[in-house]
Amino acid sequence: MYATRNERRRFLFASGSTIGAAAIAAGGARAEGKAPAGAQLFDVPDDPTKEQGRPVAADGGYGTRSQFETAVRVRYPTPNENTSWSLTPLADLVGNITPSGLHFERHHGGIPTIDPARHGLVLHGMVDTPKRFSMDDIKRLPSVTRKHFIECSGNGLTEWKKPTLKTVQQTHGLLSTSEWTGVLFSTLAREVGLKPDSAWVLAEGADAAVMTRSIPMEKMLKDAIIAYGQNGEAIRPEQGYPIRLLLPGYEGNTHIKWLRRLEVSDKPFMTREETSKYTDLMADGRARLFTLDMDAKSVITFPSGDMRLPGPGSYTITGFAWSGRGRVQSVDVSTDAGRTWYPARLDSTPEPMCTVRFSFPWRWDGSPVVLQSRCTDETGYVQPTRAELIAIRGDHGPAASVYHLNAIQSWGVSQSGGVSNVHA
Amino acid sequence: MYATRNERRRFLFASGSTIGAAAIAAGGARAEGKAPAGAQLFDVPDDPTKEQGRPVAADGGYGTRSQFETAVRVRYPTPNENTSWSLTPLADLVGNITPSGLHFERHHGGIPTIDPARHGLVLHGMVDTPKRFSMDDIKRLPSVTRKHFIECSGNGLTEWKKPTLKTVQQTHGLLSTSEWTGVLFSTLAREVGLKPDSAWVLAEGADAAVMTRSIPMEKMLKDAIIAYGQNGEAIRPEQGYPIRLLLPGYEGNTHIKWLRRLEVSDKPFMTREETSKYTDLMADGRARLFTLDMDAKSVITFPSGDMRLPGPGSYTITGFAWSGRGRVQSVDVSTDAGRTWYPARLDSTPEPMCTVRFSFPWRWDGSPVVLQSRCTDETGYVQPTRAELIAIRGDHGPAASVYHLNAIQSWGVSQSGGVSNVHA
Repeated sequence: MYATRNERRRFLFASGSTIGAAAIAAGGARAEGKAPAGAQLFDVPDDPTKEQGRPVAADGGYGTRSQFETAVRVRYPTPNENTSWSLTPLADLVGNITPSGLHFERHHGGIPTIDPARHGLVLHGMVDTPKRFSMDDIKRLPSVTRKHFIECSGNGLTEWKKPTLKTVQQTHGLLSTSEWTGVLFSTLAREVGLKPDSAWVLAEGADAAVMTRSIPMEKMLKDAIIAYGQNGEAIRPEQGYPIRLLLPGYEGNTHIKWLRRLEVSDKPFMTREETSKYTDLMADGRARLFTLDMDAKSVITFPSGDMRLPGPGSYTITGFAWSGRGRVQSVDVSTDAGRTWYPARLDSTPEPMCTVRFSFPWRWDGSPVVLQSRCTDETGYVQPTRAELIAIRGDHGPAASVYHLNAIQSWGVSQSGGVSNVHA
Repeated sequence: MYATRNERRRFLFASGSTIGAAAIAAGGARAEGKAPAGAQLFDVPDDPTKEQGRPVAADGGYGTRSQFETAVRVRYPTPNENTSWSLTPLADLVGNITPSGLHFERHHGGIPTIDPARHGLVLHGMVDTPKRFSMDDIKRLPSVTRKHFIECSGNGLTEWKKPTLKTVQQTHGLLSTSEWTGVLFSTLAREVGLKPDSAWVLAEGADAAVMTRSIPMEKMLKDAIIAYGQNGEAIRPEQGYPIRLLLPGYEGNTHIKWLRRLEVSDKPFMTREETSKYTDLMADGRARLFTLDMDAKSVITFPSGDMRLPGPGSYTITGFAWSGRGRVQSVDVSTDAGRTWYPARLDSTPEPMCTVRFSFPWRWDGSPVVLQSRCTDETGYVQPTRAELIAIRGDHGPAASVYHLNAIQSWGVSQSGGVSNVHA
């Protein structure tokens, strides 16, 4: 049929010869195949086998992404760059781990530069023997490695009353999942000895904001980690280098970054961050303090806001589900604005206080639809609708309840395939 | 006791006030606390709370490591930089995942630059309907995400006859573990339909070396993945961007990078890489072909070659164990050159064809010792000694058997705390 093996290969690899396969237009949020504007590119040969590739770097080095991979965090345009946040491009992730370079940020005083050789963790207060642990001390103690999400309690706080932001990165991007390595607080507690009446621990960070939160001792002893590792290497400066507190399932601000001090007490310290901020106004006008657990939540990341489906056909709806109270038990998907629900596939065995990716094969007939996902966690708690949540928390004007918006998210798909953030 | 809260804090944080904690001198391989020579550093304030930190980057961006984290891959000094390899700094890792930027490399023709919008995977040969899959086609199919190691069959090949290299990065660094996301080959096979007598698949890469290997169909259908994701994002150019073949547990060269073609046949293709190379000479002078499974193996990464322990005391011995044939069942550690063995702790539940980190609390009395680890996998196979392996493979001169050196590794600790690669 072909004179030579090479001839056959040329035919098979001729550009445009796509036999029997259709393409998805992935929309603006996914930059695959588009080189960044103005960036310096390597020439891309038509046939890479005909050109010697790049050599292995002389010093081996620390590898980087392909020039064709351009997903980035997006900073929310706050007036002050030091008290600001940046959002994970959830729709660009694969699997169930957030690349360290794309982990979301929320800082109140910028990112400090800390020399680990000069950094220490002081553990004092109602203890038998106060201690200052150097980084070497911390790392020589037995460690654990566990996969957990961190979510800011303000994730999506613009979305209570009206659909405001456009993409899933904007509405849900204060969420990331990493493999964290560190020493259990309980291990450190054994080193210093806790006094009998100790009941709370103040955690303090070494950034300009000197973030402080009071944590119940029960939580500290249960599963709190003083974490120095993120996805196999040192945690990133934006995530608290060289050590942060990791409280599986608790609201993000309690996972104090750039941790420098833990003070044991019998009472909460009632810091600014847990009185003036991070409280929740309820329907009866009183405020709930120490709303520490992140409630069960889920969101569809494909298709999601600002994408455009090329037309009717088969798609795999996918997204993430998580709960601060334990494992995800199940995820349901609706393609009719919540009238009917079907179970979605969980792509992996759920782990405690960790995201799980779900998938749902869907055949779109081209009619306008509203897609939703709903998470049930192992306690039996079911992710509520916005209406249900507002009924419990009260309607407090434009900001509604501000924090802990874990309502079901709706994405409207129009007849032309445009996907948008809707309230349904 | 102190006039003000601030005074107390200044005392606690004064440099040098380390109460009751000793430091480990980690040796040359760990660069914590040492800034890279000549690198531009941010000024490091004595008290980071007194200075505004770095703001959140305007474009959010893609984060990088702390300037104080300098572990890198090291390139083996081959004469030709295009056919070369670089080694993972195993002793600098935490947890059980290799940061993508530190994944080992082994290339035979350099690293190609491939535009994913122009790349495709051709699946043809003994199939009903040959197809060319674009990257979009591949990504719209149902995916899996699984954690697996890749090990080069030449890992440590200099170490058969004499201890030659110094550090664990050099002796064992052609080993890395990632979360891989991709589509199962079996899913693609359903798309094209396999002819009844099909028994082998040729996998071909798009690099200048045009690497090719023949893979048994049983393996392809069992758990072969066409992988496009590595630790939550696109695989790295050094690991085969935009797609590679992932054959859990098989020798590294079969995981063809920059995958462009899969040809189905009823016979192996007997390519150069599986005849002239990657075969193993046995004791009787015959060569074993298709030695595809990586055998059970383990290595202690701390303490390891070129480190120096500061003196007698308590340490946590740690390292990795893995097997290409299934799960690690157990790991034992010896501190007396293999005369007596004790079980080590497995830091996580072993997963199939994946590394697991082990830990072993050890009290060193200061006398010279030889440390070893030994892996048993779920098939019952026990990691052999060098002597046992040579008896089976034969002694073929300076290169011995070259590939698949999975023998127990010995680290000698001298009275002064120096750790070195020894044969014991």
